[in-house]
Amino acid sequence: MGDKLINGNIPDECKRHFKAVNDTLYILNGKWRVMIIACLGSGKKRYLELQRIVEGIGPKMLSKELNNLEINGLITRTTLKTRPVTVEYELTEYARSLKPLTDGMAAWGKQHREKVIKEMTVK
Amino acid sequence: MGDKLINGNIPDECKRHFKAVNDTLYILNGKWRVMIIACLGSGKKRYLELQRIVEGIGPKMLSKELNNLEINGLITRTTLKTRPVTVEYELTEYARSLKPLTDGMAAWGKQHREKVIKEMTVK
Repeated sequence: MGDKLINGNIPDECKRHFKAVNDTLYILNGKWRVMIIACLGSGKKRYLELQRIVEGIGPKMLSKELNNLEINGLITRTTLKTRPVTVEYELTEYARSLKPLTDGMAAWGKQHREKVIKEMTVK
Repeated sequence: MGDKLINGNIPDECKRHFKAVNDTLYILNGKWRVMIIACLGSGKKRYLELQRIVEGIGPKMLSKELNNLEINGLITRTTLKTRPVTVEYELTEYARSLKPLTDGMAAWGKQHREKVIKEMTVK
């Protein structure tokens, strides 16, 4: 969109484009979010299972991240009437629409890391 | 990668995948970075031009973001021997490899915003 500067100002169309990119960045950002999504990719999980699998995440952070993913329609939260209560988290179909993007990011990130390491070695 | 949990633990292969995704998120993240990249997409710019076009960015933040983009090989910085000195920033060929990703993010972010607004209207 950068080739559409009009009189040196950014047209509204481009601003909407940036906003849309930043919306996606916001959804995916954070150390844990992509990891939680991927972890739920293998099927629904209970809270404690998630905490065990996503090594290093604290309970407050896990709850916060799960809540954010739920608000954005990427996971569902189901409370089972067991004693004690069991809470299960499951990926929505909608969440799978992110897969091509995260795969693309993984590919770019991988080549970027290799490029940076190579350049450091040459120096 | 989520379907590859082995004994409930995340295999190293998947950890590398998450790391690669986070590397890309790190490069693109921040309110301004994508905007600066897009702005330079229309050709090289001087520092003051960038500050004018990227409305609302402060000089400290702009310098910080430009420095980060330079370190990551996405832009080049050229000092011209004018009086006073002119500094020009230009996108590298490498930076253009990010375009399919940012376009994909813009498309997903756009539909996500529309979805969220639609759901809020229904409620």
